[in-house]
Amino acid sequence: MDRMDIKADRPDKGTGGGRTASRFDVILDSVGRLLRRGAIGNLERMVSKMHPADVAKVLHHLNSAQEKRTVFELIKPDRSKAQVLSELDEGDLGEILTDVPAAEIAVLIKDLPDDDQAYVLNCLPEDRSQEVLKLMKPEDSAEVKDLLQYEPKTAGAIMTTEYFSLPEHTTAEEAIHKLQGAKDTGNVFYVYVTDTGDRLVGVLSLRQLLQVPPHTRLGTMIKRDVISVATDTDQEEVAKLVGRYNLLAIPVVDAEGRVLGVITVDDVIDVITEEATEDMFRMAGLPADESIFAPVQVSARRRIPWLMLNLLTAFMAGGMVAIFEGTIAKAAALAVFMPIVAGQGGNAGIQTITIVVRSMALGEIEARDARRILNKEISLGVIRGILFGLIVGVLAWGWKGEWGWGFVVGTAMMLNMLVAGLLGTLIPLGMKAVRLDPAIASGVFLTTFTDVLGFLFLLGLATLLIGQLT
Amino acid sequence: MDRMDIKADRPDKGTGGGRTASRFDVILDSVGRLLRRGAIGNLERMVSKMHPADVAKVLHHLNSAQEKRTVFELIKPDRSKAQVLSELDEGDLGEILTDVPAAEIAVLIKDLPDDDQAYVLNCLPEDRSQEVLKLMKPEDSAEVKDLLQYEPKTAGAIMTTEYFSLPEHTTAEEAIHKLQGAKDTGNVFYVYVTDTGDRLVGVLSLRQLLQVPPHTRLGTMIKRDVISVATDTDQEEVAKLVGRYNLLAIPVVDAEGRVLGVITVDDVIDVITEEATEDMFRMAGLPADESIFAPVQVSARRRIPWLMLNLLTAFMAGGMVAIFEGTIAKAAALAVFMPIVAGQGGNAGIQTITIVVRSMALGEIEARDARRILNKEISLGVIRGILFGLIVGVLAWGWKGEWGWGFVVGTAMMLNMLVAGLLGTLIPLGMKAVRLDPAIASGVFLTTFTDVLGFLFLLGLATLLIGQLT
Repeated sequence: MDRMDIKADRPDKGTGGGRTASRFDVILDSVGRLLRRGAIGNLERMVSKMHPADVAKVLHHLNSAQEKRTVFELIKPDRSKAQVLSELDEGDLGEILTDVPAAEIAVLIKDLPDDDQAYVLNCLPEDRSQEVLKLMKPEDSAEVKDLLQYEPKTAGAIMTTEYFSLPEHTTAEEAIHKLQGAKDTGNVFYVYVTDTGDRLVGVLSLRQLLQVPPHTRLGTMIKRDVISVATDTDQEEVAKLVGRYNLLAIPVVDAEGRVLGVITVDDVIDVITEEATEDMFRMAGLPADESIFAPVQVSARRRIPWLMLNLLTAFMAGGMVAIFEGTIAKAAALAVFMPIVAGQGGNAGIQTITIVVRSMALGEIEARDARRILNKEISLGVIRGILFGLIVGVLAWGWKGEWGWGFVVGTAMMLNMLVAGLLGTLIPLGMKAVRLDPAIASGVFLTTFTDVLGFLFLLGLATLLIGQLT
Repeated sequence: MDRMDIKADRPDKGTGGGRTASRFDVILDSVGRLLRRGAIGNLERMVSKMHPADVAKVLHHLNSAQEKRTVFELIKPDRSKAQVLSELDEGDLGEILTDVPAAEIAVLIKDLPDDDQAYVLNCLPEDRSQEVLKLMKPEDSAEVKDLLQYEPKTAGAIMTTEYFSLPEHTTAEEAIHKLQGAKDTGNVFYVYVTDTGDRLVGVLSLRQLLQVPPHTRLGTMIKRDVISVATDTDQEEVAKLVGRYNLLAIPVVDAEGRVLGVITVDDVIDVITEEATEDMFRMAGLPADESIFAPVQVSARRRIPWLMLNLLTAFMAGGMVAIFEGTIAKAAALAVFMPIVAGQGGNAGIQTITIVVRSMALGEIEARDARRILNKEISLGVIRGILFGLIVGVLAWGWKGEWGWGFVVGTAMMLNMLVAGLLGTLIPLGMKAVRLDPAIASGVFLTTFTDVLGFLFLLGLATLLIGQLT
């Protein structure tokens, strides 16, 4: 077991809290043992002492929905239960809440920050979340109802309306008093400062507030030129801005510049992680919501549609070969070079497409860069083409003792390497141009082309030069 | 150009600052025009008004090292210049500083936070960074020298020694006074509280400090059980903890629990982004430092070694086909099914390996989960195997009118789908077990197996049943 430890399990020397992943296998084993023994009292004490994020992780690892529900019900107090809910992923949350009455959910979530409330409600089926909203007190549900209006994955959908703002004529002393009197509004790092029209004009940190003379007016000490986003800004763009400018929170403003809410850095971290996973999954033909612990039948439903598409593209490659069946019957050694030419093209293309897709996702590529990147990848294609064309050409010539073999195999390899660089760049740029996510199955499209064209080059040339090969 | 806009370029309605990516193409065009016209005065005003992160982005997009150096020299004041340095990537930084005298670098970086100083020095060649350190005043270089001792990519290497800590008997009022008198120590969000042995015992936020009566002692209001890491904790593990527990900063402590430094959330965001890129690149056989804007010859040097490895594995697949050349000569249509069986196996395996590698990176998989995941992926392999085995088997039978074709092609597909699930799980788990990064070229290894074994199943069965095929 020790050697199978995953990286996150490195013992964390000197850690005070001990709530690190190093002990996670032990925790899961204990929970499993207590569940089997039915030692509910012990289990209850155990989960109630844990951090909500850790309880969520335990629930994620349990095998059955029944076990998840049992453990969830043991969390005390309700406040922790609600926090655990906000840490769960959509699948776990659905399984756990499926039999919980709407009235109970309404009570559970009422003290959560409004962005977490919105998250929980968004994970429920539409009719259930409407039911929960109706059962909440109007004053508790007003803000979350607003948040639920926004398109998923936009700034509006992930912001919280719990932030701290003051007019610019407020003094530092008054601001501190206001802050002391404010009800708990979660993580407050910045004070947003507004003009008489309620428009955002500047921002300052709590620390700055402490370091100026008490009568200083906020308007005289703020950083103006605040970086903000609109409610419909894509969450990926929000994450890029927070990352680039090292922000702890970014305000969301309306068309007039009035603050509607704030997105905090902890939610941005979730966005960054989620978007990276989504891109990796999409390139591999996996739906973004696929999970390693999903039941077999669920995973089958998620993965097989893509494999069906793959099969169609594989038939295209097979179809290309079928056209040249007669040539292969005369020179069966061509089949030896088929996987070499096609595979090498596919791998070179995957290198290109991966770097293009990732650079786009990171916002490194501007529209003006398209031509420059294309030129570069074509140059690389030529270099690789000459290099690998020569290598396999010479080897094929040496093996078969005929220059024709060297020419056919080498040229096919050269052309396919060029195609790989060209298409590895054009496919993601093209997908972007038609407003599709460049990551979606771009690997599948690419390898279809490098297979089909690789076979065309190899078998087509062989057909033309068949006299030299046999 | 509008349609080629990348997602990050959406116009950001209502943004006050205007420093969003929507105007980035325009900025780059202006910089290019001013450079060509030699309008140095205008260029200087332009870059000096920009956020250091934006200047770094402009520099990244410029074509030549010469242009980068020209624009960099125009940044005023030196403080901004230093901030731009800390925002540059390693390649750009090397190009820009290559001709700058060590003495000048020493002056430039002296006011940067120590973690940024360490970053800049780490990007320089070893002898150059030693020279810069020698030219810095001992009081300026002491802390950064300590930081440079730590292994790259560990908590020690990315922490800053600029944090704020106080003994537990301090009162809230005293703490606020201390904070007001402290020199600017960058982003301070938490006060770390220590016992008489200087060991970390708790943490509180600035906000809490404001909300308690002035004479409250810190020891009575802190959150104990602080989540911390050791200097040698891997940066990926640090990022996971910060993400899981929604922290703004995480303290780094020694074996006795004394605080040595702090890692802030903005650096954690960089780690998360960098590690995701690294995993994507590794799976595609790209070195982690490859960049879309690297010169052609540099990219060629970075990408070709992996393609050489690919070529070797492609020869293994070709070699397997060569063994059965005689069979193909008798039944050339086998070559039609070769890419179908091998390609479908490769794609199914890539799905599996992608989800396993990503789940490992996110810390979702504990050692105890290995068997459960393997069982699941084998079950999925069986389902896919039966489904796709039947589909291609029936199609092959229909096409060739012989049950033998259906049996050979269908069985080969079924077996290869099973292999795909098995190896897609075992390869990353095995790489982890021998302490290798499961992402490294796992795609290459996998498709080698699905190619080689797919051809073995298809052509081996065909050889056994050749009487039924011809």
